[in-house]
Amino acid sequence: MEKDLAGKGNWKKFLFETIYESETFLGKFFNVALIGCIILSVFIVMLDSVEEIHVRWGRVLFVLEWAITILFSIEYLLRIFCVKKPLNYILSPIGGVDLIAILPAYLSLFFIGTQYLLVIRAFRILRVFRILKMWNFINASHTLTKALYTSAIKIGVFLLFVVVIVVILGSVMHLIEGGKHGYENIPRSIYWAIVTLTTVGYGDISPRTPLGRLFASAVMLFGYSILAVPTGIVTSELIKSAKSKHADSGQSCPACGRREHDEDAHYCKFCGGKL
Amino acid sequence: MEKDLAGKGNWKKFLFETIYESETFLGKFFNVALIGCIILSVFIVMLDSVEEIHVRWGRVLFVLEWAITILFSIEYLLRIFCVKKPLNYILSPIGGVDLIAILPAYLSLFFIGTQYLLVIRAFRILRVFRILKMWNFINASHTLTKALYTSAIKIGVFLLFVVVIVVILGSVMHLIEGGKHGYENIPRSIYWAIVTLTTVGYGDISPRTPLGRLFASAVMLFGYSILAVPTGIVTSELIKSAKSKHADSGQSCPACGRREHDEDAHYCKFCGGKL
Amino acid sequence: MEKDLAGKGNWKKFLFETIYESETFLGKFFNVALIGCIILSVFIVMLDSVEEIHVRWGRVLFVLEWAITILFSIEYLLRIFCVKKPLNYILSPIGGVDLIAILPAYLSLFFIGTQYLLVIRAFRILRVFRILKMWNFINASHTLTKALYTSAIKIGVFLLFVVVIVVILGSVMHLIEGGKHGYENIPRSIYWAIVTLTTVGYGDISPRTPLGRLFASAVMLFGYSILAVPTGIVTSELIKSAKSKHADSGQSCPACGRREHDEDAHYCKFCGGKL
Amino acid sequence: MEKDLAGKGNWKKFLFETIYESETFLGKFFNVALIGCIILSVFIVMLDSVEEIHVRWGRVLFVLEWAITILFSIEYLLRIFCVKKPLNYILSPIGGVDLIAILPAYLSLFFIGTQYLLVIRAFRILRVFRILKMWNFINASHTLTKALYTSAIKIGVFLLFVVVIVVILGSVMHLIEGGKHGYENIPRSIYWAIVTLTTVGYGDISPRTPLGRLFASAVMLFGYSILAVPTGIVTSELIKSAKSKHADSGQSCPACGRREHDEDAHYCKFCGGKL
Repeated sequence: MEKDLAGKGNWKKFLFETIYESETFLGKFFNVALIGCIILSVFIVMLDSVEEIHVRWGRVLFVLEWAITILFSIEYLLRIFCVKKPLNYILSPIGGVDLIAILPAYLSLFFIGTQYLLVIRAFRILRVFRILKMWNFINASHTLTKALYTSAIKIGVFLLFVVVIVVILGSVMHLIEGGKHGYENIPRSIYWAIVTLTTVGYGDISPRTPLGRLFASAVMLFGYSILAVPTGIVTSELIKSAKSKHADSGQSCPACGRREHDEDAHYCKFCGGKL
Repeated sequence: MEKDLAGKGNWKKFLFETIYESETFLGKFFNVALIGCIILSVFIVMLDSVEEIHVRWGRVLFVLEWAITILFSIEYLLRIFCVKKPLNYILSPIGGVDLIAILPAYLSLFFIGTQYLLVIRAFRILRVFRILKMWNFINASHTLTKALYTSAIKIGVFLLFVVVIVVILGSVMHLIEGGKHGYENIPRSIYWAIVTLTTVGYGDISPRTPLGRLFASAVMLFGYSILAVPTGIVTSELIKSAKSKHADSGQSCPACGRREHDEDAHYCKFCGGKL
Repeated sequence: MEKDLAGKGNWKKFLFETIYESETFLGKFFNVALIGCIILSVFIVMLDSVEEIHVRWGRVLFVLEWAITILFSIEYLLRIFCVKKPLNYILSPIGGVDLIAILPAYLSLFFIGTQYLLVIRAFRILRVFRILKMWNFINASHTLTKALYTSAIKIGVFLLFVVVIVVILGSVMHLIEGGKHGYENIPRSIYWAIVTLTTVGYGDISPRTPLGRLFASAVMLFGYSILAVPTGIVTSELIKSAKSKHADSGQSCPACGRREHDEDAHYCKFCGGKL
Repeated sequence: MEKDLAGKGNWKKFLFETIYESETFLGKFFNVALIGCIILSVFIVMLDSVEEIHVRWGRVLFVLEWAITILFSIEYLLRIFCVKKPLNYILSPIGGVDLIAILPAYLSLFFIGTQYLLVIRAFRILRVFRILKMWNFINASHTLTKALYTSAIKIGVFLLFVVVIVVILGSVMHLIEGGKHGYENIPRSIYWAIVTLTTVGYGDISPRTPLGRLFASAVMLFGYSILAVPTGIVTSELIKSAKSKHADSGQSCPACGRREHDEDAHYCKFCGGKL
């Protein structure tokens, strides 16, 4: 705000406002350009992996790629420079993603293949939520994240069950099809069981014997029934979180100031004071 | 209503009642015939695209197609003529669909291939809701549209996450399968990731290496877990909208002022006062 | 109950109790045997369609099939004979199924192929609910049926949208893939669109061009999002019906005797009397 | 607790605490080692089924496998020895799994192929819930199990409907495709119907005729609609159980007797009395 002051401290502040916030015009411009660069960079890696494009445009893409990498490196250094607690930024998830977004390019100088890891830059696209500052978006994203987080444990337990079941089903199928028709070994049969139970159904491995088909049918109907479980978990969590959000917007107790009262409450449930 | 009046204004009114409303017998007949023509027209385009039918019946279908196009053109002009604010109609979504429904036919005189775009006429089938005027249908459709609209933002946020994840997963799979077995480049690998994560599972591209299958299994189980998210969003919105519909239509008690009465309530359930 | 009475009327009653009800020992035995015959009959048709089994056991199955058909015919005639209002039974859905269950056998004497329609007998298996008279089962089935029935209209509206969308998507894909790779005509492309949107994904038709794959990816992500809609509809209906069922179990008003009061109600919402 | 006492009874107690509980250090160590052995054992069976690994490491895996089997046998005998009511343990589900986990190894001495059944050991992994004693996990698992159990009957009824429908659909498809293109017999056509209705969609059997594709499209759209049913059932059960859990654990107000207090409530929300 006090830009008339000279010196390094002011530059830092100006940089911070431009890079980290998007209130000022320059800040907005910087952040939109950043998102543009991220998307462009991901597209370059994608296109470069296509044989025909690599042959014809490989050198242009290579130069562009390095130009963006250098820009990102400068941006990373500036971020460290202008933030108050650089270590906090470096160790934060967003700082980690920023580092990982430039590292593979430098690693590709020594190791072949690592340049493909540059698509990890795609994660940086999620920065878009920051810039947009559209409350609807952020709110929606927040509710989702919260409900998914609460569901995560339950779905984890469920997945453990699924893994155990899938190991059993795969092994039984290996026995039934007699180690033929793609069920040559148990890991491959387990792969089939996962493909079937999740209703993906590639069809690269599918039962050929009548008994195998009967068993596969049972597996499919079973998968059909338990498909409902993660959905049920997430849905009930979302409904719960939607309700608790509702409750949050209720009044706060005049006596103890606590919230989270039900809508039909006449007295504070924590201190007994009249609402 | 006052049809005994002569002159152009009356004709306009008569036309309006016939074309736009479906209260009168002629209006009903016109609208049912219109739906019939739309369905017939879509079927003609579909059948004409089949080689064997095109060879044998191509000329008949061509004549029929143009007959319907001319009918639709006349209908469109009449709609503009008899409506009070023609510009409003032309610029409205329904007017746009009506125009798009006839345009490709005329364009096909100059450009090859555009005649297939005539299937856009299929959108006009949705007019059926207007004619039926079955309140259940319209109501159901309305609740759906509203809940879908509210869900749209959240699902949009979720899809952005999915796109980012799919880009990463596709690239990792490209590395794992070593650019073989259909994973020749990253865009194709991303296509595979989408096919897998949405549980469509064509099987045109599927992992062949053990490590690829292990990774694919993880992707499937992950997709299995997040499949629940859009469902959860839509379901919780539908439940919310169902509740708000219920609550909204309730009156408040004149005696105690409380709400949340059921629609079939005659007396306040809290104080017993007459509603 | 008064079995000591002689004559035709008594026989009718005895038959009725045995065939229609399952309170008596003979009634239970008859109905269990009936279910057994139905399942056996369906299995015979299924097995007879298998080439190898038909060659070796065809004659045995043929005899068994006709034995069961004759038994079913006798049963049908007895049902007409011993019921009070035969026409009501004949025209009821259950009577229709009973007739359809024997008709194809006789038709197969004149027309080839109709014997496969005998599997319609499978519908008779649903009689099992009647015999079991397990209230949990019937209740579960009832709630399901009711919720499905209420959902049916909404899902119908949704399916109309889906059909319109699928026609458009199929036609666009026909244009994109240039009438090749299985997208030879629009009906086939629509078939592909349905296979993709419902996440079945056979893979018998799948995009080959980059643009086709991009479009297919969009279709899949779209299908992924709207997959949630029928689920959301059914779930919200089930929750609603579960709630209304809950309300049913509440107290009945001492004044007017009506039920369906909310749990937090102090006064009857219909007559205002104290609960 | 009184470990200073000597004799057999004490040993039993010490063993019991170590094997069955995981409070003591040794108990924790034992149980973690047990889970490790189970996972190792399952991996050995899986790897041994892979041809290349079997050829090179077959003997090592064989020795390891028998070492673990003998360890499990000793553990089983110790469990019987140190538990108070050995018969209860042997006949309990967990005791059954423990026995089944070692039996196939001994059976494989007499019968070929049974060694694959050793993957049933995978079920023992679920013991992990016992050891972790993380209440969140157990609670999540408990709510899930309860809701799934309540849903089981309804889903059972639904699956019976699905089986009947699938038999009919398969037979009709057998007729439509004229016993060709993989629909050679009714059981195979039913297999196709299950693959389609559950949206697995291998594509090993898929319609080839236009009429077959039309019918398959109808089946898919139908499957799409009823896919929602098991999900709806589980979700509504989960929501119900979430609610009842909330309500059940609440106490009733000593002053006004009302319930429905939240778990964190200290005062009645209706009259303000201390709970």
